[in-house]
Amino acid sequence: MESIVNCAAYSDGRRVANVKLDEINLVLKQPDQFVWVGLHEPSSEMLNQVQHEFGLHDLAIEDALRAHQRPKLETYHDSLFIVLRTAQMNPEHHRIDFGETHFFLGSNFIVSVRHGSSLSYADVRMRCEKTPHLLRKGPGFALYAVMDSIVDQYFPVVDELENELELLEEKIFHEKFSRETTEHIYHLKRELLELKRAVSPLIDICNRLMRFDFELIPEDTRPYFRDVYDHSLRINEMVDTARELLTTALEANFSLISISQNEVSKRFAGWAAIIGVPTMIAGIYGMNFKFIPELNWHYGYPIVLAFTFGTCIFLYILFKRSGWL
Amino acid sequence: MESIVNCAAYSDGRRVANVKLDEINLVLKQPDQFVWVGLHEPSSEMLNQVQHEFGLHDLAIEDALRAHQRPKLETYHDSLFIVLRTAQMNPEHHRIDFGETHFFLGSNFIVSVRHGSSLSYADVRMRCEKTPHLLRKGPGFALYAVMDSIVDQYFPVVDELENELELLEEKIFHEKFSRETTEHIYHLKRELLELKRAVSPLIDICNRLMRFDFELIPEDTRPYFRDVYDHSLRINEMVDTARELLTTALEANFSLISISQNEVSKRFAGWAAIIGVPTMIAGIYGMNFKFIPELNWHYGYPIVLAFTFGTCIFLYILFKRSGWL
Amino acid sequence: MESIVNCAAYSDGRRVANVKLDEINLVLKQPDQFVWVGLHEPSSEMLNQVQHEFGLHDLAIEDALRAHQRPKLETYHDSLFIVLRTAQMNPEHHRIDFGETHFFLGSNFIVSVRHGSSLSYADVRMRCEKTPHLLRKGPGFALYAVMDSIVDQYFPVVDELENELELLEEKIFHEKFSRETTEHIYHLKRELLELKRAVSPLIDICNRLMRFDFELIPEDTRPYFRDVYDHSLRINEMVDTARELLTTALEANFSLISISQNEVSKRFAGWAAIIGVPTMIAGIYGMNFKFIPELNWHYGYPIVLAFTFGTCIFLYILFKRSGWL
Amino acid sequence: MESIVNCAAYSDGRRVANVKLDEINLVLKQPDQFVWVGLHEPSSEMLNQVQHEFGLHDLAIEDALRAHQRPKLETYHDSLFIVLRTAQMNPEHHRIDFGETHFFLGSNFIVSVRHGSSLSYADVRMRCEKTPHLLRKGPGFALYAVMDSIVDQYFPVVDELENELELLEEKIFHEKFSRETTEHIYHLKRELLELKRAVSPLIDICNRLMRFDFELIPEDTRPYFRDVYDHSLRINEMVDTARELLTTALEANFSLISISQNEVSKRFAGWAAIIGVPTMIAGIYGMNFKFIPELNWHYGYPIVLAFTFGTCIFLYILFKRSGWL
Amino acid sequence: MESIVNCAAYSDGRRVANVKLDEINLVLKQPDQFVWVGLHEPSSEMLNQVQHEFGLHDLAIEDALRAHQRPKLETYHDSLFIVLRTAQMNPEHHRIDFGETHFFLGSNFIVSVRHGSSLSYADVRMRCEKTPHLLRKGPGFALYAVMDSIVDQYFPVVDELENELELLEEKIFHEKFSRETTEHIYHLKRELLELKRAVSPLIDICNRLMRFDFELIPEDTRPYFRDVYDHSLRINEMVDTARELLTTALEANFSLISISQNEVSKRFAGWAAIIGVPTMIAGIYGMNFKFIPELNWHYGYPIVLAFTFGTCIFLYILFKRSGWL
Repeated sequence: MESIVNCAAYSDGRRVANVKLDEINLVLKQPDQFVWVGLHEPSSEMLNQVQHEFGLHDLAIEDALRAHQRPKLETYHDSLFIVLRTAQMNPEHHRIDFGETHFFLGSNFIVSVRHGSSLSYADVRMRCEKTPHLLRKGPGFALYAVMDSIVDQYFPVVDELENELELLEEKIFHEKFSRETTEHIYHLKRELLELKRAVSPLIDICNRLMRFDFELIPEDTRPYFRDVYDHSLRINEMVDTARELLTTALEANFSLISISQNEVSKRFAGWAAIIGVPTMIAGIYGMNFKFIPELNWHYGYPIVLAFTFGTCIFLYILFKRSGWL
Repeated sequence: MESIVNCAAYSDGRRVANVKLDEINLVLKQPDQFVWVGLHEPSSEMLNQVQHEFGLHDLAIEDALRAHQRPKLETYHDSLFIVLRTAQMNPEHHRIDFGETHFFLGSNFIVSVRHGSSLSYADVRMRCEKTPHLLRKGPGFALYAVMDSIVDQYFPVVDELENELELLEEKIFHEKFSRETTEHIYHLKRELLELKRAVSPLIDICNRLMRFDFELIPEDTRPYFRDVYDHSLRINEMVDTARELLTTALEANFSLISISQNEVSKRFAGWAAIIGVPTMIAGIYGMNFKFIPELNWHYGYPIVLAFTFGTCIFLYILFKRSGWL
Repeated sequence: MESIVNCAAYSDGRRVANVKLDEINLVLKQPDQFVWVGLHEPSSEMLNQVQHEFGLHDLAIEDALRAHQRPKLETYHDSLFIVLRTAQMNPEHHRIDFGETHFFLGSNFIVSVRHGSSLSYADVRMRCEKTPHLLRKGPGFALYAVMDSIVDQYFPVVDELENELELLEEKIFHEKFSRETTEHIYHLKRELLELKRAVSPLIDICNRLMRFDFELIPEDTRPYFRDVYDHSLRINEMVDTARELLTTALEANFSLISISQNEVSKRFAGWAAIIGVPTMIAGIYGMNFKFIPELNWHYGYPIVLAFTFGTCIFLYILFKRSGWL
Repeated sequence: MESIVNCAAYSDGRRVANVKLDEINLVLKQPDQFVWVGLHEPSSEMLNQVQHEFGLHDLAIEDALRAHQRPKLETYHDSLFIVLRTAQMNPEHHRIDFGETHFFLGSNFIVSVRHGSSLSYADVRMRCEKTPHLLRKGPGFALYAVMDSIVDQYFPVVDELENELELLEEKIFHEKFSRETTEHIYHLKRELLELKRAVSPLIDICNRLMRFDFELIPEDTRPYFRDVYDHSLRINEMVDTARELLTTALEANFSLISISQNEVSKRFAGWAAIIGVPTMIAGIYGMNFKFIPELNWHYGYPIVLAFTFGTCIFLYILFKRSGWL
Repeated sequence: MESIVNCAAYSDGRRVANVKLDEINLVLKQPDQFVWVGLHEPSSEMLNQVQHEFGLHDLAIEDALRAHQRPKLETYHDSLFIVLRTAQMNPEHHRIDFGETHFFLGSNFIVSVRHGSSLSYADVRMRCEKTPHLLRKGPGFALYAVMDSIVDQYFPVVDELENELELLEEKIFHEKFSRETTEHIYHLKRELLELKRAVSPLIDICNRLMRFDFELIPEDTRPYFRDVYDHSLRINEMVDTARELLTTALEANFSLISISQNEVSKRFAGWAAIIGVPTMIAGIYGMNFKFIPELNWHYGYPIVLAFTFGTCIFLYILFKRSGWL
């Protein structure tokens, strides 16, 4: 039974015992204790056993088995079911790995179910156990602690994306544009949209936790959820700002491509004129008319040559001044 | 009477009898039974008979006759009328086929009316009959079962559209752009808008089913509608994300066309210069002046030729380095 | 008094008498009768008389005189004043002709005032008179009947605009783009915005009619307004979808113009190279150097010609393969 | 004391006396009278006196001194303070001149304070005095009369901007595009945004006047504010439509520039080919090979000339047909 | 203890004593006094002492230690915690420096905590002490005074950004476009988005201060917060308008680049034709046919020359008229 990461009973904010799944029943009968269970990609049999121990709803258990849920909070008459998405930057592939964590919260238990890529919550549990005066507030506080750590993991991800945006800005405004830059803009947009989908439902979930669900989240735990709410809002705002900047960046990129196109056209036109004029003049004196007086002048050739290249130099200066070259 | 697909009476979650339309009256008088009728593109006479048996409202019957309704939920004083749109990917023409299903729901009956392209609900009914402890909850649960299957049919459609989007991305960023890609983007946008119109009213319908209409949907059936609600939200979000990505893809496509235009201009300019320079020099030595000393040099021709092509090679290297070729 | 199109008293859903304006008073005293008056661009005197007979508010009468109102619903303490906009496709000029219809609704009267382009409501009245069991519900039902016919007239207009959009798509993706197509897109956008302005307030009006105004619209008439509400929503959605598609079409059109520009540049560059190479070679053998050995070869001319055009053919094949020609 | 434009006492809808500022006290004590004061850019001393006479709040007086407020409605416990922006088309500079009017409204007084460019309200007052049966309703009606006249002044402004938009359309679709057109579009957008900022708060102000503030606006005056509300909505809609059309116009303009660019490229390419071919052929027969048989033919020159220009004519027809010329 | 900028007790609107942190306890016991403490980047020890003196919540103290919060208002059962962002234009680097100020507000105390770049509030305090009849209203008024001064500091920032926008307009419409202009537009957009994030939460904060929190903000202080609310709205509107104008400016800039590109193409095409025609004619008379009668004419050369340059002049006039040159 490797998928049970941790299962312990707490009393007055202190861990009193490690519990086995089938002994949970006994703990739940103790008036001042609560159980904190941590699962990782559990099998359906284990989830059924958990359902049985805590008396959970069929639908919530079904959801907890499958990953790829939307973040949501559902109330069942004596418990809450919460789905959150976790995010981590994959350092190798430079993209976000999403995972999911599901929670069952009752008056004297909390069960967390991790799916996919996410850090273990062992650290969070340890930090909680170091502040028994807070953990004493009950499973609601444990929920806050894990949610807080999940939301905090979003900040480095957003920072990374903002760094990428700054790199893109640098490329757009100070290097040559390339197909890669455009493709990069597109993929950054894609990741921001995915992140947005993971984060934006969090705002509503926290809002409801800190306002509506009175019995399971005690009065003095609610201000803590305001903190998570606030962080969700900030991440959301950062993502929105990045999205709007990205749209502007794409347009600015486009604008710069056009400016460059313009410059290419002007330079080409300028040089074409500078090459075209001697060609034209040379053509004229290449005609085979019997009577072209200049052809017989002794200094005809150098004069024409000087005149021709004088014209070229004149054109060059003219174009240089008007910004065409 | 082919358009009656199925008509049965249920008691305590089990099918107790197949019923004819004109015997429904008798069943409805039994306190613990409900009737589940499945119709497929019924004639107006049949609908009138159904109206008579269940005491339905004129307007709802009128609506049930015509397809091309918006998804909606309407309450009549003792029954609900629901219109949903169904979607299936047409494998041949690569476009979405939409159908419609209408429901009449009363305290002891449910009538489903299918229009256009949609799968039969025989499978759903069979699955329900296998879980009598759930079907026992009444016609509200039957409604859930069919709605759930309708919404689940949207997922493969959305997946297919997301695949098409990925194919488009591949084409945009890694192949040459073409008129077909642009047209494809446009048609994908069109389909997403149609899908959006079919799905987005579902959110409101589910929301109302799980919150407001107390009598027809019993308390313990409502959490099931949250499931459908959740799926509708997810499909909606997927469509919105795809739409925003498509808009960005169109812009990125456009940006890449401009970059390519730029490259074409640069290469053309570069080669024009490389061809233009020998033409100019050759023109000069093609002039018919009597006194052009170089013409009489013994090695004039090879020297000029060497100089000319040296210049060309120099230009070639110059342009290559500055990225114009 | 031509602007009175029709004025009749109804009892139990049946027309009992044609009434003159100054006899209305008598009818209104009958407990079970109501009056239905149809006016068409009435003079201010006639409206004053109507005001006097039914006891209407100054402001409503002022509004009813002037056309060019927004669609709106206003409640006065014992009557409703409703402004709707009507739309018809002008077959000659291919644009929408808008008209207006104003309603005064009391507990025992309904007055309709038509302005500008709109069909007469004689047909609607006739259809109502054929269903006395419905018209018996009172002037609220008459209001529904006329509103329903007004909203139904929007469908052919929207269909026509959708046809125009499809024609535009055909032009954009399968014909050459032209200034006319762009202008057409712009004018279609203009018409959709005007249509939107006419239709979108309808949703709110219907919503209020089916929910808030309890006394004048009897309980059993309200479901009928849901029908009008639903149609308004559908027209609104169709207009919104068409607008979004039009925006995408403009962008796609633009994208195609750029692709074409790109193709033009490539083909020009290709042919310029194919023409430029023989010109350059011919230029070289046109030089007047004394010692150009090739010039004296017997087969110099055909060899150079063959080499030159061989190069041209090689370039042609090269460009053809890489898609530049 | 020039900044007092008018100050009069009204009883039963009729002007009973012109009042001096320090006599207002006496009038306010009369049970059935109200005072209507009109100020124009008053000094801070005069405003202090007005404050003293009517017992107004410090903050409202501070606001009334400074122009450049947002339109707003503020309730103080026995009075209202309203800020509106007025707009007039400046015929010389073709731009909108904005002004401001502030109102203090009490149960028996109304004070209007005009700032900047705006018409005097003497006309409004005169029209009110001609309808004593309406003015009898009290200072709330006077407020309506002035607000109505302010909002009515927006219509010619919006009409002027719509005319400018139509002129722009004419220029975009039927004349050559120019830098001026683009600049004009931008400045029209700027003015529409400013107008929007002035008008859109009006909707909320009217909405509150006609719904919430029960004591100062008597029941029978409220329908009049619905009229102002309606006009604000219409102006707002007109501005929004113009904005959206302007955005589309900018895009259409852009699209047309690209089409034109395309045509220029095609025509250039066509003519370059038509000029390039004879140049190439002439170059070939300009080569100095000893043995070019054609050069010795008697009709070589006219034959080559005829062939060359035949090719040119062929190319011309070819390009003309395929739309390149 | 340098981070305590000021700490004083007030009674009846007058400063009665400067207080040390550990004496605050005594003051708080006095019924008619309140304490106003100003801190600047306090250490965590000092904050803990402040927490102890005023009995503040752990979470609020944690937030007050860290900068980089979102502007927010949080209610704890007997105190308020408010976070605001301050903004100042950095004159050297031409960008906005953001700071933060946090407030703790109780019934008889107010603590302000400044972080990062922001002006001291000594001036505000002085101005308050000069109007004891206002400061007498309690710590709520002190809060208003500081918030008002914070919001007023946004106006010069917005003015500066609007000036930059006008400079950009000048550059876009009257100078040559450049990469710098595009980059400038992008960076202005970035700053507007940051400003928006700092200002927009203010609207909601002020709204709540003037409506909901009854006990800490006395009735007669609330109108003052309406003033701050109003200013926040105005700044917000100015930022939104600037953003929309900036988007339009980017598009207009782009449009002008295309117009310029068009002009370049046309001028190039025109001059290419004017140079190409003599080159072609000269080529023809440079052919080496034995029998070209014109070559032997005595005036052949001047006639051809005249004809050629006549054609050039004709083309020049033609192109000049049609706007290509």
